[in-house]
Amino acid sequence: MRMVDLIEKKRDGLELTKEEIEFIINGYTSDTIPDYQMSAFAMAVFFQDMTAHERAALTMAMVQSGDQIDLSAIDGIKVDKHSTGGVGDTTTLVLGPLVASVGVPVAKMSGRGLGHTGGTIDKLEAVSGFSVEITNQQFIDLVNKNKLAVVGQSGNLTPADKKLYALRDVTATVNSIPLIASSIMSKKIASGANAIVLDVKTGAGAFMKELTQAEELAKAMVDIGNNLGRNTMAVISDMSQPLGFAIGNALEVKEAIDTLRGNGPEDLKELCLALGSQMVLLAGKTSTVEQARILLEEAIVSGKALETLKTFLQDQGGDPTVVDDVTKLPTAKYQIEVPAWDTGYIGQIVADKIGVAAMLLGAGRATKESTIDLAVGIELRKKVGDFVNTGETLVTIHTNEENVAEVTKIINDSYTIASERVEIPPLIYKEIK
Amino acid sequence: MRMVDLIEKKRDGLELTKEEIEFIINGYTSDTIPDYQMSAFAMAVFFQDMTAHERAALTMAMVQSGDQIDLSAIDGIKVDKHSTGGVGDTTTLVLGPLVASVGVPVAKMSGRGLGHTGGTIDKLEAVSGFSVEITNQQFIDLVNKNKLAVVGQSGNLTPADKKLYALRDVTATVNSIPLIASSIMSKKIASGANAIVLDVKTGAGAFMKELTQAEELAKAMVDIGNNLGRNTMAVISDMSQPLGFAIGNALEVKEAIDTLRGNGPEDLKELCLALGSQMVLLAGKTSTVEQARILLEEAIVSGKALETLKTFLQDQGGDPTVVDDVTKLPTAKYQIEVPAWDTGYIGQIVADKIGVAAMLLGAGRATKESTIDLAVGIELRKKVGDFVNTGETLVTIHTNEENVAEVTKIINDSYTIASERVEIPPLIYKEIK
Repeated sequence: MRMVDLIEKKRDGLELTKEEIEFIINGYTSDTIPDYQMSAFAMAVFFQDMTAHERAALTMAMVQSGDQIDLSAIDGIKVDKHSTGGVGDTTTLVLGPLVASVGVPVAKMSGRGLGHTGGTIDKLEAVSGFSVEITNQQFIDLVNKNKLAVVGQSGNLTPADKKLYALRDVTATVNSIPLIASSIMSKKIASGANAIVLDVKTGAGAFMKELTQAEELAKAMVDIGNNLGRNTMAVISDMSQPLGFAIGNALEVKEAIDTLRGNGPEDLKELCLALGSQMVLLAGKTSTVEQARILLEEAIVSGKALETLKTFLQDQGGDPTVVDDVTKLPTAKYQIEVPAWDTGYIGQIVADKIGVAAMLLGAGRATKESTIDLAVGIELRKKVGDFVNTGETLVTIHTNEENVAEVTKIINDSYTIASERVEIPPLIYKEIK
Repeated sequence: MRMVDLIEKKRDGLELTKEEIEFIINGYTSDTIPDYQMSAFAMAVFFQDMTAHERAALTMAMVQSGDQIDLSAIDGIKVDKHSTGGVGDTTTLVLGPLVASVGVPVAKMSGRGLGHTGGTIDKLEAVSGFSVEITNQQFIDLVNKNKLAVVGQSGNLTPADKKLYALRDVTATVNSIPLIASSIMSKKIASGANAIVLDVKTGAGAFMKELTQAEELAKAMVDIGNNLGRNTMAVISDMSQPLGFAIGNALEVKEAIDTLRGNGPEDLKELCLALGSQMVLLAGKTSTVEQARILLEEAIVSGKALETLKTFLQDQGGDPTVVDDVTKLPTAKYQIEVPAWDTGYIGQIVADKIGVAAMLLGAGRATKESTIDLAVGIELRKKVGDFVNTGETLVTIHTNEENVAEVTKIINDSYTIASERVEIPPLIYKEIK
């Protein structure tokens, strides 16, 4: 087999076999296929797409390019949730304790990552003492005990995907449905998930700006998962404005606690119930999604969800009293209000810009070397459709620097105030199975 | 400017500016743009094509990536001829003396190259003593004196094209009209041509198997040339069977001499007159192509063309008496006849296979290190449409090895003998200006 012939085959719109795709991924991982052939191949895929068979084979070849996590020692069906990313997305912090509290095992492997805020681990470290430095055995034992544990990503997972992603990033081949879908799904499968619930975001603050694109990606991932024997479904949810109110690490932990207590923002709560009930269903805990939703609502009302969070934090060294006294979370030196410059209805909050503002405050990492300030961030006071009077607070900036002129400017740019009431976008567009 | 943005722009079907194309080619030549970005770009070009502006800019950027030959010290309009290559193409050896004999300057820079037979220089070296080891000044003086000289390619011409071509070869991006056309035209323009006549081959023995492809390539090159101020036209000619009778170095020199004397194969003579009269026209020697053709026919009849060949050979150290006594050319030890296995009409002679047979005999180079045997080759005795009786000679093999079983098998495979008279393909399909 010669790579040049396989590039040509894909270029000419023919379907590659499983063996051919394995040849490509194995060769690329072991450096026998050079970057310049792989990038030409990726561009050919961009134009010619991949069939369902090819997508599944590509995903599995990337899974097999590195370590695969074995979660078989954990009882039950391991359901993982993945979000395609947005701004102020606190769902993971809520969903973990929520579904664990009804008996669904959540074995979360997480990273720190680059972005507007830190990753799940960074956020959890806002709880004093909390640590993900546990052994694999401890991790498994904790999941079996509490149905919830979080560990840092270890091992060499999907090295082919890492290498390919870095290449795609500099060769204008990121934006290809089969390549995006196989990249995400390979990581989930290598992490040991038996079933997967996907939260595909759409709107101005999402990677997939258009609903049709989001649907296409969701369908691609669901098909890959199901074709590879992982029960998979996707929810397409709105990211035209940030989710919830909080963007920032400690702020999001607080918001998650509020939500688990039943006092969180309506949109965050609703999305968590939607995603969570699908997780419960896929885990086989109920036979309908309606039953699953009732279970979760009960767990919130009864306090069981909050109890699960406390136990989880405590068992990983964290201070559980934070849950009942959120003032123990890191707090920024200054709280600065950004007032509305007009009276009217909030027409738009550009999520991307709010994210950039949070990052500028220090809530996220621009490079791997950046240090995160867990206390800082942005709290939205008004969301799309809300009425506001001139001078009323739009946003509270939590900052450790007094001068927030640049951040304030970005926030003002991200908001529009309209004279007419605007239509509020739906939170959930559709489900794809 | 960032290469990744330019790849994306091309990927999305937008037109690149001259400055952007220069950025790409300069960056690639100077190694600041890596192969993996260039190959992704080439694949994007494969799918999205290039506009006339982009093609011209790409060609000129490749011309400017290296040395450019200055032929201004040579009197008159320098017209270069380029063929896209085939089997048994002796036109260059005929055209040089032919058009020079009517006063058109032919300043031929040539190579040795890989292929079924040697390059023009190899062929000319079949004439004892002939050498291309002349200085640039001698080259220019000889062209001014005799209107014809041949020199080996020197200098660093179109390094961007060389580098890009090698990359395209291993990334399935060879077969792209804008990339092929700009590659050919950049070499011609860097070599100092003021005007260019292109011989684009089509048929089984050509790179462009289909007439429509050949037309598209011809049109692309003609447009590039004319857009860059080089008067350019193309003739699309047949390469469904080998041109003329001879495939081999000394054999082709002999055939060229025959043709200049008026005794050559009809197809070779006709193509040389067609191409030659266009060269004469572009050089401004006549105002119509018909007048040009009459001039050339007269030069053959009067012996002026043959005289020009003799002077040219002599002035570059060659033995001019070869022209009147072709037995002085290298001769192979064995002449082996390949007989027809049936009676009927020759239906097909697959040019590619004949070429491979000639190479196997030693007429061409498989690698840069191969040594050419100037004496060996293949002489066709029957061409498409000819009637042949069983046992009559199809081909004479000129060889220095007695065992030609493999070569004979290939030759037999390349011929078909049909019971019905077959249609003879036209020699010239069309002209594109």
